[in-house]
Amino acid sequence: MKPSHIEHIGIAVRSLDESIRFYEEVLGLQCYNIEEVKDQKVRTAFFQVGDTKLELLESTEQDGPISKYIEKKGEGIHHIAYAVENIEQKLKTAEEHGIRLIDKQPRKGAEGLDIAFLHPKSTHGVLTELCEDKTRNRINS
Amino acid sequence: MKPSHIEHIGIAVRSLDESIRFYEEVLGLQCYNIEEVKDQKVRTAFFQVGDTKLELLESTEQDGPISKYIEKKGEGIHHIAYAVENIEQKLKTAEEHGIRLIDKQPRKGAEGLDIAFLHPKSTHGVLTELCEDKTRNRINS
Repeated sequence: MKPSHIEHIGIAVRSLDESIRFYEEVLGLQCYNIEEVKDQKVRTAFFQVGDTKLELLESTEQDGPISKYIEKKGEGIHHIAYAVENIEQKLKTAEEHGIRLIDKQPRKGAEGLDIAFLHPKSTHGVLTELCEDKTRNRINS
Repeated sequence: MKPSHIEHIGIAVRSLDESIRFYEEVLGLQCYNIEEVKDQKVRTAFFQVGDTKLELLESTEQDGPISKYIEKKGEGIHHIAYAVENIEQKLKTAEEHGIRLIDKQPRKGAEGLDIAFLHPKSTHGVLTELCEDKTRNRINS
């Protein structure tokens, strides 16, 4: 089963306020939510574009993963997240192909999704997230 | 008018063959076209995911922009392209907001689209492409 769509694109930014201004005033998008994800040490701003979300990620602490990312690489696109069904099976397939899993089992992410990351060293440089909305998949099936 | 969707995400890769294998065998996507864009010195592989395309970009020459990008930053996500209407007006708005335009006027890109790039130095690190399908917009209007 192929991913149904790109659930979101994560973008690492220094300042939510400044970046939101670019996406709203220049691109004409509208931020519909800002949320703090404490265990990731980020504040996130969401925009809907077609069936995909942009998630701007601002670090809330100096030792957070986004802070470290920006220190090393500068602001920019951080990851791509695919909406999949049967995330456990996808992880198994990835492992069988020698992909390095950051999460061997799915964990809970924002908006109640089950998520897991694949390491960019084994995905040709792209930090790749799989996410599954188990509530929706159960309702649909 | 906000962008209707993300037209594509450009991903810089060293080898189309190896990367296609990841996207097909691990993620379950299917490459539906490979195209050479001579003036960009790239070969591009396309995948459809929901209303967005992935475009894998492999350099065909050592001095090509994708080759230089990979040399500097490694493989990874290269740009995000938004499907817009009235691209000229969007460029004007961007310029009025002090955004550095790589293309002051739209030029022809792949698949007959009118395209223009905004410089990542003024868009918080994201090389941003605007594209307009003028044929479709004319038919719809």
